[in-house]
Amino acid sequence: MRIAIYPGSFDPVTLGHLDIIQRSAKMVDLLIIGVLNNKSKSPIFTVPERVNLLKEVTKDIPNISIEAYEGLLVDFAQERKASIIIRGLRAITDFEYELQLAQTNRKLNPVVDTVFLTTNVNYAYLSSSIVREIASYGGDISQFVPNTILQSVYDKIKSIRSV
Amino acid sequence: MRIAIYPGSFDPVTLGHLDIIQRSAKMVDLLIIGVLNNKSKSPIFTVPERVNLLKEVTKDIPNISIEAYEGLLVDFAQERKASIIIRGLRAITDFEYELQLAQTNRKLNPVVDTVFLTTNVNYAYLSSSIVREIASYGGDISQFVPNTILQSVYDKIKSIRSV
Amino acid sequence: MRIAIYPGSFDPVTLGHLDIIQRSAKMVDLLIIGVLNNKSKSPIFTVPERVNLLKEVTKDIPNISIEAYEGLLVDFAQERKASIIIRGLRAITDFEYELQLAQTNRKLNPVVDTVFLTTNVNYAYLSSSIVREIASYGGDISQFVPNTILQSVYDKIKSIRSV
Amino acid sequence: MRIAIYPGSFDPVTLGHLDIIQRSAKMVDLLIIGVLNNKSKSPIFTVPERVNLLKEVTKDIPNISIEAYEGLLVDFAQERKASIIIRGLRAITDFEYELQLAQTNRKLNPVVDTVFLTTNVNYAYLSSSIVREIASYGGDISQFVPNTILQSVYDKIKSIRSV
Amino acid sequence: MRIAIYPGSFDPVTLGHLDIIQRSAKMVDLLIIGVLNNKSKSPIFTVPERVNLLKEVTKDIPNISIEAYEGLLVDFAQERKASIIIRGLRAITDFEYELQLAQTNRKLNPVVDTVFLTTNVNYAYLSSSIVREIASYGGDISQFVPNTILQSVYDKIKSIRSV
Amino acid sequence: MRIAIYPGSFDPVTLGHLDIIQRSAKMVDLLIIGVLNNKSKSPIFTVPERVNLLKEVTKDIPNISIEAYEGLLVDFAQERKASIIIRGLRAITDFEYELQLAQTNRKLNPVVDTVFLTTNVNYAYLSSSIVREIASYGGDISQFVPNTILQSVYDKIKSIRSV
Repeated sequence: MRIAIYPGSFDPVTLGHLDIIQRSAKMVDLLIIGVLNNKSKSPIFTVPERVNLLKEVTKDIPNISIEAYEGLLVDFAQERKASIIIRGLRAITDFEYELQLAQTNRKLNPVVDTVFLTTNVNYAYLSSSIVREIASYGGDISQFVPNTILQSVYDKIKSIRSV
Repeated sequence: MRIAIYPGSFDPVTLGHLDIIQRSAKMVDLLIIGVLNNKSKSPIFTVPERVNLLKEVTKDIPNISIEAYEGLLVDFAQERKASIIIRGLRAITDFEYELQLAQTNRKLNPVVDTVFLTTNVNYAYLSSSIVREIASYGGDISQFVPNTILQSVYDKIKSIRSV
Repeated sequence: MRIAIYPGSFDPVTLGHLDIIQRSAKMVDLLIIGVLNNKSKSPIFTVPERVNLLKEVTKDIPNISIEAYEGLLVDFAQERKASIIIRGLRAITDFEYELQLAQTNRKLNPVVDTVFLTTNVNYAYLSSSIVREIASYGGDISQFVPNTILQSVYDKIKSIRSV
Repeated sequence: MRIAIYPGSFDPVTLGHLDIIQRSAKMVDLLIIGVLNNKSKSPIFTVPERVNLLKEVTKDIPNISIEAYEGLLVDFAQERKASIIIRGLRAITDFEYELQLAQTNRKLNPVVDTVFLTTNVNYAYLSSSIVREIASYGGDISQFVPNTILQSVYDKIKSIRSV
Repeated sequence: MRIAIYPGSFDPVTLGHLDIIQRSAKMVDLLIIGVLNNKSKSPIFTVPERVNLLKEVTKDIPNISIEAYEGLLVDFAQERKASIIIRGLRAITDFEYELQLAQTNRKLNPVVDTVFLTTNVNYAYLSSSIVREIASYGGDISQFVPNTILQSVYDKIKSIRSV
Repeated sequence: MRIAIYPGSFDPVTLGHLDIIQRSAKMVDLLIIGVLNNKSKSPIFTVPERVNLLKEVTKDIPNISIEAYEGLLVDFAQERKASIIIRGLRAITDFEYELQLAQTNRKLNPVVDTVFLTTNVNYAYLSSSIVREIASYGGDISQFVPNTILQSVYDKIKSIRSV
């Protein structure tokens, strides 16, 4: 049984993430979406909220598990018996950072390998931070996040701005 | 009547910015220099100070208007009836970020298009942050900012350091 | 009156070229599409054939002129009183080559300036050489070239292969 | 049953290729190594020779099939019921070209997806053309190609030079 | 007598830094390792601690001097009569930033020139920040820092986490 | 005694090459300019002509030797007791290729190390091939090649075209 992990912050999940999820789920037996609990960042959505948004948008894909994690990715992979890490590549800048991560992870644990998928061109220039910035100015993000969570994202960002 | 916007922080304006301004002013009927009021950054110069420095260095170019803005660039462009956004390209790192911005802005408002000019080679590796850093150590910035505002930049940075 | 030149080989014109043509035609009074007669390459389509394909796909845009040229681009621009060169940017590799051309052209003739438009994401990875290669294997190129010239491209490539 | 294709020229197979083969064979049920018969290039080794060298260096990996192909990769993938194309990424220049291929192949046949593995750092700057060039000057290529085929590569290149 | 400066934060020194130090020490009469006292960053190790770690790992190289500095690098170079600045290049992202620094430094002081060495492939994706991050999660950093300082790095990071 | 080699085709030498030569000659005791006799290319100038042009433009620099070579660069370096290879870096595309060469050369002969200088911004987008192309159309190359060889380059290219 082949298990892969697709790690990320997903703050919030975008149509670009969803594209990678749908395509990589077809390639493995179980796809674990690992939601990173990064204590040095200040996310908009809490980890449980991000897990719930991911569950909502992937509810029709059977072989998926959404799980929060913290610490080193290779440790999480080993604990969950995953042999593949999946990452999306959008652009050159991504690529160098991803290469660094992949090589470092292979040094830390040679049993876990990283594979890359290229993001669909329509979402190639899309990121969670751009979604947050546009939404914070009241801009239209309906082309960037899955329809079913659109209202949740607007509500959350409105609640933050009104503080 | 063709109206273009050249947006930026201009903290402070450099000879690289001035080169882009002079060249793009020749291409359109009205060039609006949009000074971004970015609340999440801590600029050295206030927005009114940056507007004044820009007015000083562009006073001989007739078809220019210097204006502060906040919020989404495409909204500012639409409000001011501009159909072109102008950006300077210095290097690869710039390029990817700019491509992302341009593609996102086109999705948000397809009527506004982005065009790029390549920075003069003499200013290709120049940025406002480098100017601020050199000036903060008392280094010579006369090759980097327009002559007429040189003293203002030194005075400002000296006043900040003496706090 | 602002005149711009959009130079290229157009062997054949693709949907990516057409996107740049439509957008840049809106920015200037006259857009000259300059078809390069490059004697050191072996094109599939002759220069007159390429001019005709371009006329076919741009017939609804009023302020366009299709012209063949050879020699230095800056000389052609000066002769035709154009002050702007338009180039499409698809990717990083493009970018460096384009930067080199733009800087060299500015040194050769500072009156002519180059502006860049970023290719629509849907055509970001599209090139004439890919179109030629796919068509030569009988692959489907209908997503890559304008509909009105699809048959001409297939016919031409079939005639070359049957030699 | 998951079938993947790892396409290439393999003229000759290097330690970098072998690293990708070993790692990707673990991820799928059947790995087809597709040796491209590219009629517009002048290879050193014939297609049957390249197939044999690959068979020699992969003889201990059970789930591998070495096959020559020509024409479009997506057609070969469909014919062999492969749903995954595997490519190695060494560097940025690779990356852009690979992105272009992957996006084009997805447009031609959305059922076949491309995944990328990053080349082991020790082989990151290695290519078949560098191996051929060093060997043609009598340089030492033992760090670059699998040991079992070292003599075959030297013999072949010596036979070409003595013509 | 040729004097060179190899500047950096060295927080902490890695095997990648040590590789550059060993190779560049062979090229000059005196190699000064300049430890930057950057007041706008929050380092893990104090400047004196970083100087001591560097002394420990370079004690067998005779023509080396470890010195802290603050302010502009070109001023430090001039004061110490150094005519060469040495920098390690790992990847593209590095490269653009380094090019900007080198060009700016040459404008500030044309007498000091910058030369680049490419990092050994085994350390190409290694950085002090990755070392700090892995160590903070209790991961194994023995492949990344010199053996003689391994315990010091673990002790320091443990002391910070226990606060 | 430190000996360095600056290898290249120099077909013809440009102001960018001359900038690298002048700066690197200051860093070593002897600078050997190695003119590559590359049999698979069709140069404009013969190897003896290129050697003579280089002698002409470097006649005021005392510690320089101009020499033709063929075969592997590391073999030439070893034969001439050079421990340093000098290369100019203009842009990203250069960088990846140079990195590949430097890493390969280090594998072939670890005693010879490569250092890089960044090309002066004024010549950053200059190459021998651009000089040849502009000159072939009768364009002005006086900003690109040293003054003393300007006439030789024009004469040569005119003689080739009139064939």
